[in-house]
Amino acid sequence: MRVVKFGGSSLASGKQLEKVFQIVMSDPERKVVVVSAPGKRFADDEKVTDLLIECAEQCLVHNIPIEKVDLIMERYSSIANELSLPNEIIREIQTDLLNRLEKDKSKPDRFMDLLKASGEDNNAKLVAAYFQQQGVEAHYIDPKEAGLLVSNEPGNAQVLPESYERLFSLKDRSGILIFPGFFGYSKEGEVVTFSRSGSDITGSILANALRVDLYENFTDVDAVYSVNPTIVNKPKEIRELTYREMRELSYAGFTVLHDEALVPAFHAGIPVHIKNTNNPSAQGTRIVFERDNTNGPVIGIASDQGFCSIYVSKYLMNREVGFGRKLLSIFEDFGLSYEHTPSGIDDLSVILRENQFDLEMEDEIIHRIETELHPDVVKIEHGLALIMVVGEGMRRNVGTMARAAKALAKAKVNIEMINQGSSEVSMMFGVKEIEEKRAVQALYEEFFVTAKV
Amino acid sequence: MRVVKFGGSSLASGKQLEKVFQIVMSDPERKVVVVSAPGKRFADDEKVTDLLIECAEQCLVHNIPIEKVDLIMERYSSIANELSLPNEIIREIQTDLLNRLEKDKSKPDRFMDLLKASGEDNNAKLVAAYFQQQGVEAHYIDPKEAGLLVSNEPGNAQVLPESYERLFSLKDRSGILIFPGFFGYSKEGEVVTFSRSGSDITGSILANALRVDLYENFTDVDAVYSVNPTIVNKPKEIRELTYREMRELSYAGFTVLHDEALVPAFHAGIPVHIKNTNNPSAQGTRIVFERDNTNGPVIGIASDQGFCSIYVSKYLMNREVGFGRKLLSIFEDFGLSYEHTPSGIDDLSVILRENQFDLEMEDEIIHRIETELHPDVVKIEHGLALIMVVGEGMRRNVGTMARAAKALAKAKVNIEMINQGSSEVSMMFGVKEIEEKRAVQALYEEFFVTAKV
Repeated sequence: MRVVKFGGSSLASGKQLEKVFQIVMSDPERKVVVVSAPGKRFADDEKVTDLLIECAEQCLVHNIPIEKVDLIMERYSSIANELSLPNEIIREIQTDLLNRLEKDKSKPDRFMDLLKASGEDNNAKLVAAYFQQQGVEAHYIDPKEAGLLVSNEPGNAQVLPESYERLFSLKDRSGILIFPGFFGYSKEGEVVTFSRSGSDITGSILANALRVDLYENFTDVDAVYSVNPTIVNKPKEIRELTYREMRELSYAGFTVLHDEALVPAFHAGIPVHIKNTNNPSAQGTRIVFERDNTNGPVIGIASDQGFCSIYVSKYLMNREVGFGRKLLSIFEDFGLSYEHTPSGIDDLSVILRENQFDLEMEDEIIHRIETELHPDVVKIEHGLALIMVVGEGMRRNVGTMARAAKALAKAKVNIEMINQGSSEVSMMFGVKEIEEKRAVQALYEEFFVTAKV
Repeated sequence: MRVVKFGGSSLASGKQLEKVFQIVMSDPERKVVVVSAPGKRFADDEKVTDLLIECAEQCLVHNIPIEKVDLIMERYSSIANELSLPNEIIREIQTDLLNRLEKDKSKPDRFMDLLKASGEDNNAKLVAAYFQQQGVEAHYIDPKEAGLLVSNEPGNAQVLPESYERLFSLKDRSGILIFPGFFGYSKEGEVVTFSRSGSDITGSILANALRVDLYENFTDVDAVYSVNPTIVNKPKEIRELTYREMRELSYAGFTVLHDEALVPAFHAGIPVHIKNTNNPSAQGTRIVFERDNTNGPVIGIASDQGFCSIYVSKYLMNREVGFGRKLLSIFEDFGLSYEHTPSGIDDLSVILRENQFDLEMEDEIIHRIETELHPDVVKIEHGLALIMVVGEGMRRNVGTMARAAKALAKAKVNIEMINQGSSEVSMMFGVKEIEEKRAVQALYEEFFVTAKV
């Protein structure tokens, strides 16, 4: 038995739904289908989820924005028309949407979650209707009935452990089960969504709960690439990588799969197969517990911009028990999460994402560090990029760092920071944002392009 | 005006005192002389400070150990005899020592400090007597009268800021001032010592207080070496290095100067000159605020053993605001100071000195991490060595890391950890203890031995 999840672009049009149907029917193991809301049909198109967010925002300020509602309904209708589905299903979706728009708006984030979740919920109904029209036994599954319980954190729900046992009973249901992604219900019975792109999480939870053999995640790329294809032209595809490798890569720019989505699959040891709806015969990429190390030491290189470094130095800092803890407490007081804390003898830097704070908060942070820790120097450096060089084969390979550092030196990239040694499967380099592209290209050249004689 | 400090081996015998006298008299700027207790005369000899510690320990448990007292007095007497000093001074020292041994023992750490401090205090009296006998105006200076006030932390005193103003009035005293190192007085008037080898600190405090041009620190080596001479044969001498470089090197095994000793000199921008009592014409090593960068990027390589790494991993760790702070709080609760905290995406390691805890405490720490932070994995790795590659020229040199990593790879050294980027003047490598020597030799070869054509 398999759980098969389809992303938004796989469900954006009637033509895409036909592909989805073919894929599901081609293997009797594909019994549970998790669907996203309709995504983009072309580059400038709008995703239904985005339309729903705009709709909810306007609703909270003014009245129901009729034009937006029409735009949303138009997306469902066009799919239904393409597939010659009966009008009934469109009326059902419209009634549901208008119903939601009339609900209590006193808690904006609850209202927002209710609206956002309708994209997946109604699309699941539409997909089920299409499967039924094709003469297949298929059922829309209501996550509330099925028992997908989540924490009461709007827009950032976490699955509750009891869900797994409840969802297990889906195993006894006959036919193909069409399950809407992206949301669950709180114990109080309210709709709560996962963070954005959370349909991946739903699929992973179901895979875990049903103890399936495989979680197939259909998207619109042939495979996970070893490096960002906008930085390196036609990069090597990755056939197989471990959860840990995928996790480290996804941290810095590899957005194929939602970060949190790996957790339930990982805990149950269920392989995740990334495949392309538009090219289902492509091999795709498998995410597994262990893999044969056939590549070199490195399997992928990821990078991301928008980091900054707050540097604090104080003579004999490491004699002060609690210095680091006090510094980190200040960041915690501001609700900031930080990424790394490289340290020298008398200095400590905190690397964090810049988008978490503005100039005013920056001043407050610096002020608190100065008045509470009496450092010799505090300074902030903006515009850093982090590059992750990832691979299980790295730990046992003595020369990997030498190769990476040499490649960067040859490309005249100044390494602002290195963090290596805690993770066994990655090395992290901090460089200036303007040097990111050159750095990634140099590393790709070193580890993936065969050396010319 | 200069402050000149002499270490224990420079004051171990009458012959050594003659050298000290020659050195002081050869330059009229050398007005303030800070003295240690008599040190070793030969490799197996005992330092007077060690004898005093043993004496105090026995005194706290049993009676006054007459034989130890005789052994201590014998050291002073032999110096006095060699120099034909009058018996008076030896009687004075003996009276003082016996007096101290009769004092209150209800607070053992206070009694210990009182005994330890006598080594320097009495030696200063002896040196003053010798200078006077040579017809020079010289005065023993009592740190209490002079106003060297320190915090009330036995064995780990910190200078109090008001000391600097009080000590400034020493400027008006005529003649050569012989000042005992290693201790000061609490506001309550009790003797409190600095941490071991703290005479260096006394010299630095006086240099700062008196705003002298130079702090000369006489020891028994011709210079600070660029690497540990027990690891590399006849390593290059360092002519000039910055406070920061010295600080980073001293962290990991460079024990020429006490860590804390640089602080007062550094704050007043006073150069420190390391010289050899036994070869005063050798150039020595100057520690300065800024230096010309004439060496390559690296000025020295230091290393130290006895570290361990506690590794904690938890999926999606960096989503938990406060995870790192909570982890560090646990170490703080045990009074442990840590050195570095390298981190991956889902893991964090804490590097600390192993001698801070035993197996029992280790179990408790692991237990608290497990029960309070619910990590996926906690493990401890013992037997790590840290290697510091230090140099001001490093920051602007793109290829330094590549050279270092390549040298280590060539020597088949596995890099367990790299911490680079917070300090601008050092790179840190963690390796297994058994690979330390090979690693340091490889790095020395790369950065100090001219490449053969």
